Amino acid sequence: MNKEKPLILITNDDGYQAKGIASLTEALKSLGEIVVFAPDTHQSGMSSAFSASVPLRCRLYKQEKDMRYYTCTGTPVDCIKLALDQILERKPDLIVSGINHGSNAGISVIYSGTMGAAIEGCIANIPSFGISLNDFVPDADFSQSARIAYRVAEKILHNGGLPKGVCLNINVPVGEVKGLQVAKQTSGKWVNEYVKSADGAGNDVYWITGNFENWENDNYNSDEWALANGYAAVVPIKIDMTAYDCMSELKEKLLK
Amino acid sequence: MNKEKPLILITNDDGYQAKGIASLTEALKSLGEIVVFAPDTHQSGMSSAFSASVPLRCRLYKQEKDMRYYTCTGTPVDCIKLALDQILERKPDLIVSGINHGSNAGISVIYSGTMGAAIEGCIANIPSFGISLNDFVPDADFSQSARIAYRVAEKILHNGGLPKGVCLNINVPVGEVKGLQVAKQTSGKWVNEYVKSADGAGNDVYWITGNFENWENDNYNSDEWALANGYAAVVPIKIDMTAYDCMSELKEKLLK
Repeated sequence: MNKEKPLILITNDDGYQAKGIASLTEALKSLGEIVVFAPDTHQSGMSSAFSASVPLRCRLYKQEKDMRYYTCTGTPVDCIKLALDQILERKPDLIVSGINHGSNAGISVIYSGTMGAAIEGCIANIPSFGISLNDFVPDADFSQSARIAYRVAEKILHNGGLPKGVCLNINVPVGEVKGLQVAKQTSGKWVNEYVKSADGAGNDVYWITGNFENWENDNYNSDEWALANGYAAVVPIKIDMTAYDCMSELKEKLLK
Repeated sequence: MNKEKPLILITNDDGYQAKGIASLTEALKSLGEIVVFAPDTHQSGMSSAFSASVPLRCRLYKQEKDMRYYTCTGTPVDCIKLALDQILERKPDLIVSGINHGSNAGISVIYSGTMGAAIEGCIANIPSFGISLNDFVPDADFSQSARIAYRVAEKILHNGGLPKGVCLNINVPVGEVKGLQVAKQTSGKWVNEYVKSADGAGNDVYWITGNFENWENDNYNSDEWALANGYAAVVPIKIDMTAYDCMSELKEKLLK
């Protein structure tokens, strides 16, 4: 192990064979020693889920100079937890999750396995970000996202990390990117979320689908606005979810 | 359907057969029309995960006056999404998740399936809370937690709901409860998270375990303090995770 170089832990939620994580790894490898530790299956929509009742297995499947590649049977959060607790010899200097095939802007941060991993890194007090491209195509062009990941990683490593308790949710538009925009999580929700169909025996089954309903279309401070207008959105995400500004109201409402 | 009574949707992450959800349902039934819509298996640690690639199935398994009971094959979030999008004839006035077998205080709010469901209700703009008892015993005594759930539900239904974008994470101590305390999410993390053992063929497997490291032991505003001192902790949880107070710092750090 090279103790001089920064250690960068990379994961995703699309699985270790996705194009996005390969682009990300290639982009970051000049910045330090790399450990890729990614799920062995698709883990989209896994949020911060961890495996509570089944054991995890992991496998080192490739090793090169200053680079190691593992797969893990669990979720993105399992990958981060297991790497930190059992596999890595030292604490990473940076955790990067992605590049996701599809946007995780707006409320999707709550459901995203990509962001689950970044949030897990943040919980462990390690500078962390998730990065996603607003394109679900498996063979999408990740080159701009990869350059942005490099730029942000380099700034974090050389400018003293990130604020404590905060990680980044970065979403990149398709096409030419005008620049980065620090933004807020757009308010909104998914609607028309299921298609009902029948299985082979004629029983009802429900498949997830839906579309995002944006409640602040014109807010140029929102991540969805940035994406729609050609900017890569960078949202600082807090792991302390306490709504401090309504504690007094709640005391009035519940305790009296 | 009785359109006069409030509609209360109940779920959990321990599964529809858990004692906690039965205690909760019994406690709330006098407050309105009840729909129980709970996972058919244990879903602990599922956070806000939803089923992205497999279809859901649900089953009405019991019906009484103003009460219907369903099970669903998915996660707690799947239960809420499916009930709201496909099953219920009207929007619930309240969503309650629990009573969980085990605490979801501190950072556990991020991993909790119980809270995943409450957060999902909040995303749908429905007053929602999760309630958990700090006791993992399947046959735990939920009577005090049930009384607290009733009291909070009654206040929410009759005092105009909850602030927009905010749900509640309620954790109840074992033994006599001195009262409710509005609190913050305790800073800290889980440590020593895995036990390594071998499967039948001698391969390494890793089982989740661990203990919570509290980084603010003496903070009487924290939910862990409240729990440890005999109070039921009520933490208001925001679904907007944006760290507004570090946006300027980030602009300096990343954009220059």
